[in-house]
Amino acid sequence: MNDNDIDFTAIETPCLILDRERLGKNAKRFLDIAKGHKVALRTHLKTVKSVAVAKILTDNDPTAKITVSTLLEAEYFSSYGFKDILYAVGIGPNKFARVAALQNRHAARIMLITDNVPMAHSAAAFAGIHGVSFDFLIEIDSGDHRSGVLPDSDSLLEVAQVLHDSKAINLCGVLTHAGQSYSSNDKQAIAEIAEHERAAVVMAADRLMDMGVNSQVISMGSTPTVACARDLTGITEVRCGVYPFFDLDQYGRGICGYEDMALSVLATVTGHQREAGHLIIDAGGLALSKDISAQRFLPDAGYGYVCNAQSLERYLGLSVTALSQEHGKVAVRDAVLFDQLPIGAQLRVLPNHACFTAAAYPDYQLLERGELTACWPRVNGW
Amino acid sequence: MNDNDIDFTAIETPCLILDRERLGKNAKRFLDIAKGHKVALRTHLKTVKSVAVAKILTDNDPTAKITVSTLLEAEYFSSYGFKDILYAVGIGPNKFARVAALQNRHAARIMLITDNVPMAHSAAAFAGIHGVSFDFLIEIDSGDHRSGVLPDSDSLLEVAQVLHDSKAINLCGVLTHAGQSYSSNDKQAIAEIAEHERAAVVMAADRLMDMGVNSQVISMGSTPTVACARDLTGITEVRCGVYPFFDLDQYGRGICGYEDMALSVLATVTGHQREAGHLIIDAGGLALSKDISAQRFLPDAGYGYVCNAQSLERYLGLSVTALSQEHGKVAVRDAVLFDQLPIGAQLRVLPNHACFTAAAYPDYQLLERGELTACWPRVNGW
Repeated sequence: MNDNDIDFTAIETPCLILDRERLGKNAKRFLDIAKGHKVALRTHLKTVKSVAVAKILTDNDPTAKITVSTLLEAEYFSSYGFKDILYAVGIGPNKFARVAALQNRHAARIMLITDNVPMAHSAAAFAGIHGVSFDFLIEIDSGDHRSGVLPDSDSLLEVAQVLHDSKAINLCGVLTHAGQSYSSNDKQAIAEIAEHERAAVVMAADRLMDMGVNSQVISMGSTPTVACARDLTGITEVRCGVYPFFDLDQYGRGICGYEDMALSVLATVTGHQREAGHLIIDAGGLALSKDISAQRFLPDAGYGYVCNAQSLERYLGLSVTALSQEHGKVAVRDAVLFDQLPIGAQLRVLPNHACFTAAAYPDYQLLERGELTACWPRVNGW
Repeated sequence: MNDNDIDFTAIETPCLILDRERLGKNAKRFLDIAKGHKVALRTHLKTVKSVAVAKILTDNDPTAKITVSTLLEAEYFSSYGFKDILYAVGIGPNKFARVAALQNRHAARIMLITDNVPMAHSAAAFAGIHGVSFDFLIEIDSGDHRSGVLPDSDSLLEVAQVLHDSKAINLCGVLTHAGQSYSSNDKQAIAEIAEHERAAVVMAADRLMDMGVNSQVISMGSTPTVACARDLTGITEVRCGVYPFFDLDQYGRGICGYEDMALSVLATVTGHQREAGHLIIDAGGLALSKDISAQRFLPDAGYGYVCNAQSLERYLGLSVTALSQEHGKVAVRDAVLFDQLPIGAQLRVLPNHACFTAAAYPDYQLLERGELTACWPRVNGW
């Protein structure tokens, strides 16, 4: 070990390393993008699931708007003082009681979303019976066709009418997510998808206005479309989630540079199989996840790039090529790499998809100015 | 809801449902297999990660031998009284201190494994310096070529010599895992792989005997090879892990029947996209995992079979066909299924790979005689 080297020897592997400087730079980049467009950044905390990271992403503003993907996240972040929370996954009937309890306990507002009449009725009925109120956005399909009503559909007005008619429901506006932005690695094409996303959700808001509903919230976003959008006229806020960490999936799409990737998995070489042509590391399928989305635009991504633990430079051509539960296999074509990575050596893996890789870990080891300075817990599960 | 229906309405989704009766039947089947072969079943707790399940798998024998995949599991199970623990993943240098502390704290023995001279030296050096001792098995490659030394190799004797020469190391024997058993769905072929696995590890033990090492432990196993093996002569114990729950991966290989699958994910329909031809459930990539191993022998497995929440019968041709973090997409070809699965309805998903799906959950909801009777915690992470 050289004098300037990060000392990873004392920590057990596999573990999740978070680079504070890169995180800060990514946070600032997206705060600046939102500021430039004069929209709010309602950061999506589904990837980071950590209040320490959330504070950085919101520039320590306790009144900041946030987005979550689970009610457990909503409970966790509201317990730390966040009060304006969007739960951006279509609501189901078995979650109303928990939402109501949470709003009551923390004096927070949890904005819910739906795209259909049955859930709108169900929410109105629950709220009426229990003497509570819910804030709602209607989910708009802006071309991804995963979920949402089309902005020019009758369904939009039908859902809106049910929510608008209920005294217990506050219809706050519309939201969309152009997930089809993940189908391209061309910034021009992604900018066009962003424009489509913007136009769809603004059109939906206009149609609600015609029926007397003034949308306080007109929300769109994904990391690629927010990064590439040219114009956000009519939008009040944007949501994105993976930008704090980035990953090979975003790198392969050109949404971030190599040195923006802030999350890595520290692992140890536990075996050499010289005849079979691979080495074994102690980061397997649970430690890295089996997500292969990055392979679409980065065919050699494997299950992550294998990098020097100190510099995060990739070892020549090395990826994690196969996974079992606790074993990662790294195919080695050039035998000299066995000498560079002796048994017992540590390395870092840049993950394919940060949201999935991070989900297996209870916490982050924070790397700051060449030292591990803190352990930041995550809130996993539902 | 009918009178005899299981009442799932009070629990939030997604959650993990464990069928007590199926679990008990699977546990008995493998205890009987081991008994029939006159070998010990050292059950691998990497899948279940639960002491309540471990007690069933070991027939409530507190002296039972167990296998684990993480040191956190070793700590957890030893805290419940299990003392004879095999940590069946190649050891790395940053784990010795924790193993030593654990042995000291719980008066348990943690058997470690390695396949190489550097780790053998490293373990001997650590043990010598710290005045502790370690039990070791040598990992044998019985044809999977993931890890291990070949049974007829010089490497076997070299590793054995280092371990045998150390006063602080107790070389207890040999272990192998014929992971190539997962390449077949033909029981005859798997039985041949099991025989290869047996012969390889027995040969390794014989060669150790020639150098004066008497193997107390000669261990092999995977769920498929233990299920299909015809002869286990020379073996002292078998390891397998997924059999308590089974999954579509094992079902597709014919290792279990449809009604043996004990683990399922309860989910709720949160949207209909009739034009796009799918419905949305609230079990996404985190709730189901992105493991697609079952698709090899069950091409329509998708990310899991979509089943009636009451009967676990599969809805005609339905699978989870795409995943995002918290959304599961279920392609629907027959429009009548939208009526059978209205928005708000609950269903259960039979997972592809139980080890990966279960890893996202903090606990199991135990289903027993048609009722949810308990919540059993899991020990995730490292």
